[in-house]
Amino acid sequence: MTKDDLTKDKSRYVALAMELIERRGASIDRPTLAGEAGVARSRIEAIFPEETDLIDGIVEQWYAPDIVIMEEVVASALPIQRKFYEFYARRFLRDQQRFKHDPELYALYCELGEANFEHVRGYIDLADHYLTELIAQSQDEGYFEGLEIDRALTLINQMVACYTSPQMMMIVGDRLKPEKLAKILDTLFAGLSAKDGGAMAVTPIQAVT
Amino acid sequence: MTKDDLTKDKSRYVALAMELIERRGASIDRPTLAGEAGVARSRIEAIFPEETDLIDGIVEQWYAPDIVIMEEVVASALPIQRKFYEFYARRFLRDQQRFKHDPELYALYCELGEANFEHVRGYIDLADHYLTELIAQSQDEGYFEGLEIDRALTLINQMVACYTSPQMMMIVGDRLKPEKLAKILDTLFAGLSAKDGGAMAVTPIQAVT
Repeated sequence: MTKDDLTKDKSRYVALAMELIERRGASIDRPTLAGEAGVARSRIEAIFPEETDLIDGIVEQWYAPDIVIMEEVVASALPIQRKFYEFYARRFLRDQQRFKHDPELYALYCELGEANFEHVRGYIDLADHYLTELIAQSQDEGYFEGLEIDRALTLINQMVACYTSPQMMMIVGDRLKPEKLAKILDTLFAGLSAKDGGAMAVTPIQAVT
Repeated sequence: MTKDDLTKDKSRYVALAMELIERRGASIDRPTLAGEAGVARSRIEAIFPEETDLIDGIVEQWYAPDIVIMEEVVASALPIQRKFYEFYARRFLRDQQRFKHDPELYALYCELGEANFEHVRGYIDLADHYLTELIAQSQDEGYFEGLEIDRALTLINQMVACYTSPQMMMIVGDRLKPEKLAKILDTLFAGLSAKDGGAMAVTPIQAVT
């Protein structure tokens, strides 16, 4: 097999595996995939040497459109606030569609992701990488003043978690709206900086009453 | 039984039920509770006429300290930013302690809560009620300008969700820190208002590149 053939076969069998996951409502391993595809196990094993390679392929497929979105948005000429919005809103709306299309399948993929978190980690890191670029651009324009980039990153990740976490999608999905996301991002641009606003106690308070 | 006796018995058997949940690593029903307590089923059924009354008792016990915290904070004379912080931080730290003490037990209680969400709903509504009071006070002092209270409520709930959601505690708990919570609240006070910051698209954008 040439490398091209291997890539084609890989994406074809990953697509089949995902069809089977949807139809069966359960995860799938290489022997089952071979059986359902009507090919020898050795053929599937030549494409996915380990079970973990099949999982990698599925995770890759799951996140591929997200990566396209993030790359497009970061490379765009939109104003920075608009970039942030598109960066989150497009992925959120796509994910919401997947969730609404089949909540049980969505939950199953979440479980698969949680059980194979080391495979998902790379995509989270990639999203952090792109967000870092957006934060750097924001700071060049005077926003998020005085914050280390990593500090801004973790705070933004937490404030926008409802719109990126599949678990939150399952729990409060009906309360999540693009226009609320926009308002949250407006709040970040207007209010996030190193300046102390006084929420934190200077000394621990023993009795408040 | 007088009403006082009933209340005492109820809280004693709820405490026992929670001990048993911890020991067994599984939920509990009235027959098992009666067996473990060495009393007749009829006695347990006199205290908890339905299974759902036992669940109610457990949920009540689980949230009782949170209600004390919220009442104390709302009634306190702290500056409003500090009230917000204590409102969230105290409950978060208490919950984090429960999580760290026994992550599996914590996960089990989350499952119980999800499976009996109608019992939990009342406590979420109560938290929203207290938060509404804090928002009203903030607006009296000029913060969150121009926003309807319900609108501010849903936005704040979403921005602080990492510090109130048991699911987020289980997923990103090690990244959650009181000083980050304080920074998020500072951001809210500095930036949350009805003012349009430009994140939302005026018209849907077809191509960004």
